[in-house]
Amino acid sequence: MKSAIFEKAGLVSVQEVDRPQLQATDDVIIKIVRACVCGSDLWSYAHGDNKEPHSVNDGHEALGIVEEIGTAITTVKPGDFVIVPFTHGCGECDACRAGFDGTCDRHQGATNWSHGFQSEYVRFHYGNWALVKVPGQPSDYTEGMIKSLLTLADVMPTGYHAARCAHVQRGDKVVVIGDGAVGQCAVIAAKMLGASQIVLMSRHPDRQEMARQSGATAVVAARGEAGIAEVREVLGGGADAALECVGTEAAIEQALGVLHNGGRIGYVGVPHYNNRPIGSTFAQNISIAGGSASVTTYDKEVLLKAVLDGTIDPGRVFTQTYLLAQINQAYADMQNRRTIKSMVVVSKKMTD
Amino acid sequence: MKSAIFEKAGLVSVQEVDRPQLQATDDVIIKIVRACVCGSDLWSYAHGDNKEPHSVNDGHEALGIVEEIGTAITTVKPGDFVIVPFTHGCGECDACRAGFDGTCDRHQGATNWSHGFQSEYVRFHYGNWALVKVPGQPSDYTEGMIKSLLTLADVMPTGYHAARCAHVQRGDKVVVIGDGAVGQCAVIAAKMLGASQIVLMSRHPDRQEMARQSGATAVVAARGEAGIAEVREVLGGGADAALECVGTEAAIEQALGVLHNGGRIGYVGVPHYNNRPIGSTFAQNISIAGGSASVTTYDKEVLLKAVLDGTIDPGRVFTQTYLLAQINQAYADMQNRRTIKSMVVVSKKMTD
Repeated sequence: MKSAIFEKAGLVSVQEVDRPQLQATDDVIIKIVRACVCGSDLWSYAHGDNKEPHSVNDGHEALGIVEEIGTAITTVKPGDFVIVPFTHGCGECDACRAGFDGTCDRHQGATNWSHGFQSEYVRFHYGNWALVKVPGQPSDYTEGMIKSLLTLADVMPTGYHAARCAHVQRGDKVVVIGDGAVGQCAVIAAKMLGASQIVLMSRHPDRQEMARQSGATAVVAARGEAGIAEVREVLGGGADAALECVGTEAAIEQALGVLHNGGRIGYVGVPHYNNRPIGSTFAQNISIAGGSASVTTYDKEVLLKAVLDGTIDPGRVFTQTYLLAQINQAYADMQNRRTIKSMVVVSKKMTD
Repeated sequence: MKSAIFEKAGLVSVQEVDRPQLQATDDVIIKIVRACVCGSDLWSYAHGDNKEPHSVNDGHEALGIVEEIGTAITTVKPGDFVIVPFTHGCGECDACRAGFDGTCDRHQGATNWSHGFQSEYVRFHYGNWALVKVPGQPSDYTEGMIKSLLTLADVMPTGYHAARCAHVQRGDKVVVIGDGAVGQCAVIAAKMLGASQIVLMSRHPDRQEMARQSGATAVVAARGEAGIAEVREVLGGGADAALECVGTEAAIEQALGVLHNGGRIGYVGVPHYNNRPIGSTFAQNISIAGGSASVTTYDKEVLLKAVLDGTIDPGRVFTQTYLLAQINQAYADMQNRRTIKSMVVVSKKMTD
């Protein structure tokens, strides 16, 4: 089968590799319909990030059709259309029962994050609870709906996680830091949870416009102290919640700066900073929470329904579509901000 | 009037000083009935902590009778019996309206923390919203009830803040770190909020027994890795919430260690550590929140009623009572763990 292979920083190729086989009793083999490129992959695409040359690529979001199931699988059957999350919650441990399947207690670290989804087939390990069934078949849906369903494998639940970690509630003034796919989804999530004002930090007109369509009430382009001052002026005071969707020191400082005392940060950008000790926000009474999103929990609880009934339309973050053979272009264009997020068509002809 | 004066590490004296006068229009002069010693004062009592020699002492919790009011004061009148909080929330800013009057946006840093309450009279600045009226007069209450009312100036709301910051909810498994007055109050708070299991980390039999009477379901004496393992064995897994009531590196590490992924820390011990960066708990999805307690909000919302109707009895933390003249003994005994918390009788004869 064909699969994306990480060659070196700046180069991902497509090569013929063996089709994966069932190994454990709770494995599921899935034929991939759509995959995509995640912003978190760009850390290794741009810089290498210690990633092994000529290794399976990161890609960890997909839609697919169940092809084969292990003997312990009871939740899906061959032919089912499924969202394939980037995590593998067991659904039974303390973390999963508390709604944090993104950091399942049983599958910590590397075993809980998927990779290699930019392929014709994948082996989804620990498959019994985490997969999310979608009614019908891909051909029952418009391409726009397919895009929105694909966001449910990662970025929409991740934006929603930022909002949930920050306990966004009706009437809140919310600031979203990051205008990429996750930031866009965080705007959608803040709106879903009833925020009265949503300020997006963004310097890109196309992304500003997309966020406004999703519910952003204002956009601030300035950064640092000037950005903080402008947000406070727009809101008439400090924000109740800040959703940090980048992972840099500048982003977390921006989040801390816009809040009133007692404000709340939800962070979902993989942290690439260590400048602020826990405890340093005691005098501001700040609440700080974040981590990998609860994809399966949120999809089953609220997000799949919201997509299917048209309440939300997160699929708009896919502003360019590529064939699997064009995978390196999909990365390069996203890295160079020529697209917000790159969709990759794997098993059907490209329809738009 | 008589007032406690910090002379140097290990020595607090009582001296004659001028009675405070109204200065601002929102000042209130209060005749103190009961004061006490806070665990947070012990950092300076034991070590000096850069505190100016021969200066007004820290003491910041009291019950009193309103003596005089500034022209802008509309909420209390002379003769009112009041809880005198350690903070001065304005009741109107973003932070106060969000329920975080302990870190009022208008009175940040030194202006929001009281001091000098171990005196016959105090000037309570920014007095219009923060004071909490108690029905009747001190003579209407038993000494036990007076003690419980006195905890409402700091330690009971502080323990409650730890539980609220950790979003303790019905059925939660909660670990309390710290067996002093705040830790004891955190046990009471966890019970109030419906925790199903409450484990206290404690090595002192008298404190263990007090916590058990308040609702602790287990006690763990071991520390570090051994303590974490024992807590997990007692709970049959990780805790949902950890209430950190000490402020040391060992305490925050203990809190992090006992949680399942997706667990929540509420911290109220003034942080004397900086070992863990914000973002370092991404892989565990931990929520971390804390700061100065919302004394006025919690008292008015739930705690005063709970004390008056006998639902909670936090006054038991005052295991020794002193006259103001004995203030240094009150500190020394608390420092040496001869009492959990020292009550100081200022204006009535000592009754027990």
